Amino acid sequence: MAGNSFGNLFKLVTFGESHGQAIGGVIDGCPAGLPIDTEKVQQELARRRPGQSSIVTQRKEPDTVKFLSGIFEGKTTGTPIGFIIENANQKSNDYSHIKDVYRPSHADYTYDQKYGNRDYRGGGRSSARETACRVAAGAIAKQLLKDVTFTAYTSAVGDIKLQKKFEELDLSEIEKNPVRCPDPATAKEMETFIKQIRSQGDTVGGVVECVISNVPVGLGEPVFDKLHAALGGAMLSINAVKGFEYGSGFAGASMKGSEHNDHFRTDGSTITNFSGGIQGGISNGMDITFRVAFKPVATLMQKQKTINAEGQEVEMQGKGRHDPCVVPRAIPIVEAMAALVLADFYLLNKTSKI
Amino acid sequence: MAGNSFGNLFKLVTFGESHGQAIGGVIDGCPAGLPIDTEKVQQELARRRPGQSSIVTQRKEPDTVKFLSGIFEGKTTGTPIGFIIENANQKSNDYSHIKDVYRPSHADYTYDQKYGNRDYRGGGRSSARETACRVAAGAIAKQLLKDVTFTAYTSAVGDIKLQKKFEELDLSEIEKNPVRCPDPATAKEMETFIKQIRSQGDTVGGVVECVISNVPVGLGEPVFDKLHAALGGAMLSINAVKGFEYGSGFAGASMKGSEHNDHFRTDGSTITNFSGGIQGGISNGMDITFRVAFKPVATLMQKQKTINAEGQEVEMQGKGRHDPCVVPRAIPIVEAMAALVLADFYLLNKTSKI
Amino acid sequence: MAGNSFGNLFKLVTFGESHGQAIGGVIDGCPAGLPIDTEKVQQELARRRPGQSSIVTQRKEPDTVKFLSGIFEGKTTGTPIGFIIENANQKSNDYSHIKDVYRPSHADYTYDQKYGNRDYRGGGRSSARETACRVAAGAIAKQLLKDVTFTAYTSAVGDIKLQKKFEELDLSEIEKNPVRCPDPATAKEMETFIKQIRSQGDTVGGVVECVISNVPVGLGEPVFDKLHAALGGAMLSINAVKGFEYGSGFAGASMKGSEHNDHFRTDGSTITNFSGGIQGGISNGMDITFRVAFKPVATLMQKQKTINAEGQEVEMQGKGRHDPCVVPRAIPIVEAMAALVLADFYLLNKTSKI
Amino acid sequence: MAGNSFGNLFKLVTFGESHGQAIGGVIDGCPAGLPIDTEKVQQELARRRPGQSSIVTQRKEPDTVKFLSGIFEGKTTGTPIGFIIENANQKSNDYSHIKDVYRPSHADYTYDQKYGNRDYRGGGRSSARETACRVAAGAIAKQLLKDVTFTAYTSAVGDIKLQKKFEELDLSEIEKNPVRCPDPATAKEMETFIKQIRSQGDTVGGVVECVISNVPVGLGEPVFDKLHAALGGAMLSINAVKGFEYGSGFAGASMKGSEHNDHFRTDGSTITNFSGGIQGGISNGMDITFRVAFKPVATLMQKQKTINAEGQEVEMQGKGRHDPCVVPRAIPIVEAMAALVLADFYLLNKTSKI
Repeated sequence: MAGNSFGNLFKLVTFGESHGQAIGGVIDGCPAGLPIDTEKVQQELARRRPGQSSIVTQRKEPDTVKFLSGIFEGKTTGTPIGFIIENANQKSNDYSHIKDVYRPSHADYTYDQKYGNRDYRGGGRSSARETACRVAAGAIAKQLLKDVTFTAYTSAVGDIKLQKKFEELDLSEIEKNPVRCPDPATAKEMETFIKQIRSQGDTVGGVVECVISNVPVGLGEPVFDKLHAALGGAMLSINAVKGFEYGSGFAGASMKGSEHNDHFRTDGSTITNFSGGIQGGISNGMDITFRVAFKPVATLMQKQKTINAEGQEVEMQGKGRHDPCVVPRAIPIVEAMAALVLADFYLLNKTSKI
Repeated sequence: MAGNSFGNLFKLVTFGESHGQAIGGVIDGCPAGLPIDTEKVQQELARRRPGQSSIVTQRKEPDTVKFLSGIFEGKTTGTPIGFIIENANQKSNDYSHIKDVYRPSHADYTYDQKYGNRDYRGGGRSSARETACRVAAGAIAKQLLKDVTFTAYTSAVGDIKLQKKFEELDLSEIEKNPVRCPDPATAKEMETFIKQIRSQGDTVGGVVECVISNVPVGLGEPVFDKLHAALGGAMLSINAVKGFEYGSGFAGASMKGSEHNDHFRTDGSTITNFSGGIQGGISNGMDITFRVAFKPVATLMQKQKTINAEGQEVEMQGKGRHDPCVVPRAIPIVEAMAALVLADFYLLNKTSKI
Repeated sequence: MAGNSFGNLFKLVTFGESHGQAIGGVIDGCPAGLPIDTEKVQQELARRRPGQSSIVTQRKEPDTVKFLSGIFEGKTTGTPIGFIIENANQKSNDYSHIKDVYRPSHADYTYDQKYGNRDYRGGGRSSARETACRVAAGAIAKQLLKDVTFTAYTSAVGDIKLQKKFEELDLSEIEKNPVRCPDPATAKEMETFIKQIRSQGDTVGGVVECVISNVPVGLGEPVFDKLHAALGGAMLSINAVKGFEYGSGFAGASMKGSEHNDHFRTDGSTITNFSGGIQGGISNGMDITFRVAFKPVATLMQKQKTINAEGQEVEMQGKGRHDPCVVPRAIPIVEAMAALVLADFYLLNKTSKI
Repeated sequence: MAGNSFGNLFKLVTFGESHGQAIGGVIDGCPAGLPIDTEKVQQELARRRPGQSSIVTQRKEPDTVKFLSGIFEGKTTGTPIGFIIENANQKSNDYSHIKDVYRPSHADYTYDQKYGNRDYRGGGRSSARETACRVAAGAIAKQLLKDVTFTAYTSAVGDIKLQKKFEELDLSEIEKNPVRCPDPATAKEMETFIKQIRSQGDTVGGVVECVISNVPVGLGEPVFDKLHAALGGAMLSINAVKGFEYGSGFAGASMKGSEHNDHFRTDGSTITNFSGGIQGGISNGMDITFRVAFKPVATLMQKQKTINAEGQEVEMQGKGRHDPCVVPRAIPIVEAMAALVLADFYLLNKTSKI
């Protein structure tokens, strides 16, 4: 409720605005006895961090996570894991120009309508800065699910699309380029395009693909909490996401049943995987595959017409340091949310049979 | 938890297997004092009912809803609304042939792995019969949101796609043809194609579009429970759904920010609506638009190879009466789930400001 | 939320008014593979049933539970267990005299203030008839926790108090007398007193004690969901309950620490049990002991002054068949709620360690 | 779930161990636009603070709350209110003597059994230090319910009991003595007794009474979430609580219906208030009255026999600075929990009628 909690058994609540003193969160329900490598948490945050490469926002945020509870002598104790990430770079004065202005396709107008007031500095709570907490918590979830691998990568930037299928890719290439696309040639093309878009003061959208391997059979709950419904809801909760599809996705809508059905091998695995690793809402042990569409960032370094809180037309232009394309930094966020979903279902599944 | 509940304040829990005595549900949290037209509930069920036209399954199920509580002298009392729908047509013997067989791309294998046993008759709990309860509850939610209109329609069947945009369509045509496509010519083409597919013992997928109009500003919660995240999760929980997109959707990923931003009019409405009526996870008063991809039905009237519970290869063929394409009957389900989501956020929004 | 759901993992939602067609409920989260003896469920309902003895209400209600889903070939399937209990004895005309009258110390006034209208027939939703659903669900929870024993009994009726401690009692006596007091002499005294009170058209309160034995160590969650907090909340949710204490209870408030501390044996058990089987909110394997205070029934067979919905003074007198003392019939309800609480924590505890 | 969250709409999650870097919490769901006086929050914390008087623990903890989010320009924004309270006084070496020892009637044994490991420093999560977060959050809830007054006081310490009824007391006396008993003579007697008990290295229990005045009619939900069930569960979740009763409480169990019924005045108020301000689980506008029993503190400054983690008998003695009686410092905690319960139901009640 009220939207700041995620999960039922492995539960995360986050708090914090982009320009407050700190953001943070609480993980409630992580089982006791789990060894925690805090360095790995920091590494995940580094993948999401501003300023990490030449094609992302040049804001400086070290994004150092500080764990305040729930970990003792290197292991979880079963008590809530509280953490904070201080906001190092609170240039609040950057935002005075938008105090009374509703930026197009931002959350300014809807927040004001819903709440009657808002912290207008840098988007406040609606800023994607909040996703740092998701990445920190997701890094804990990954450690709980240590045998499962979560691999997301950039598959499209604007009209530049990765033409290869997952099976043909060398995933070790992902972190070698700033775009996080596993095909070096396509990655280069995307990088060039993002720089060109930025030089125009414009922005561009993109698509992230994610593959989850080595998933235990049986995760997910029938009816309303199907595994893909939870994954879809989780992905759609990430800032700027416009669509989600898994397995055959929208392309599956054009197919015939005789083409689409995944036939079994005698070990229970399937020859094809149009199901995307999920049948009847429950993982079947095959790779879980899904794609997430991100819209272009709404903040432009161009003049735009818009309105203010009094309903008057005004002209505005983005200031500060923004991402021309969110997709490269969204990769660890997609993985984190996937890990949070699976951790939750992993715990719940312990109660499915007597 | 355990997957059979939906919503937080306007909450639905459903129960029942396709071949048990009855399915049913409980709505907890519907405000008191709401006049209920039970005939309208029955009309919604009729739109989902088997046997309603020549292109859907010819099973006979009257799907008569019986309200057991929570409504007194024509109005809700604030107490839970319990209801049941009896299973009139329980031909359990139809299913003995699949008792030990895992049908391809069904939930048989995953249920057995997760639970250790299952009610194999007609899919049991994994049958789409369960969605009748969603439609009944959604019809109550629609009455709570009496000023909001929910309009879903078929926009694709296989490769046959509606070429017109929402604004160009005559929505009064939707219920005039069995496919529920608002363009009569395209509807005819789809109908013919579905019949042809059925004559081959095959099935086909499709796409449903939905437009929600006259939505109050302010529905939806930031961060994890964004309005579109809840809508996406709800749609993905419907049987056979593979993808969800809203507003510009996947196409938005190819766009530039300068094209995609929705500019304000002075009254707070926007000139374009790539945002799909939702900004920062909160409704902005514009039409909410989304699309849902359905895969082809997995039950074919063709011989298929598969395995049984002992991991042996067997041959099977669908029996009974199944839909060649679920999309026409999915229309009221999509609307119902949308209404349940909005009813929940509508109540929650009453607590957002002092 | 909205008050009709109980539990998180072993979850019960109930519905139904005393004079509607049926009451019922849904258990969501019962693990798959549990053999269910429906006869035992019926036996528990018989202990709560009206008309079972000469000292309880003489209403005739067979209270036959009908399971509609979730059980297949004698075992749970992991899907929700829906059930209904038909209201056989709906003498709605008995209640026309209180349609506009607020009975003293009933829920009439508060329901009308909260909801604006109510089903006035026999208390509607506020009737203790609802507890039949708790007993049915509790009987399933008891089968899940088959090694745990739940034993409640009457320990006081008005000023007549059982003087013996739990250890001195012969619990096999409980079901041998209509009061459900394990000491035959005290039981006889209580029975005589209840009959005398009834002959005066009056009612009387009482106390129920409950002992839960053979509880696994580790049930309960620290901080807000301590085992005794959940038990207390559960008991206080039963109609007419005014107080709850566990272990040393209110008497413990007069004790010194040097008297109250329970010293360990080397096997981890304790010599005394002032803790009531719970330390830090978590079961320690000792007997869980608690007491529940019930107020006298508010419906009297005497003339009482009260007010009507217009705020005018009126005179009223109870009609129909009511209990002079609820305690004897409350015994299975107390046990059922205790079983529901423990079942929930039992499942949750499966997730406490890696 | 997992026990560290409280409430549904006005929701608090807390984290932190007594000897970690900080404790803290997140309030999710506080409506936007509420002016927050942080000084009042600090004043409530001062009432719970160690070292505040000569009869409580002499630990030094400033208990300064730091709000990190959710408040902007003096008002709530509708986003989560994150806060931390640093642990100034982490004398961890004080606790090495109990690292492997299970203190009698503490949570050491049950935590180890449940979680397999624990932060043994000062009770870790099971320390009452956690209640500081409840007091901070409760102080916000009180500001939301600005017209409601919450007044708790000490009514018994050991066998010394306040003989006056609520109506006879001068509540302005409560904060004038360190025991927080509104009758100066009884307060003096209690104070003397506590000092005497402390000089013996012993501890003693007590009783807190609470009166909530000016409560809106209609708060509370029927069936499982009755207002008194929620209050009882909340109070029982406070460390050391053994019992809860409201209105007539356990004494009501001895009464006849003809004595216990609260008769209406024509304005809907009642002449007596055995109901304790709640009928059918819903507030009726009268004062809500309840009593909470606290056991004596388990840590004694005396030698006690106990066992260690290997099941060997060992001798131990409390070190450090502990309360001889928790009741004086529990007063603001009782009020805080009551405020949290009412705030939650206050918000929920906004959705009860159309």
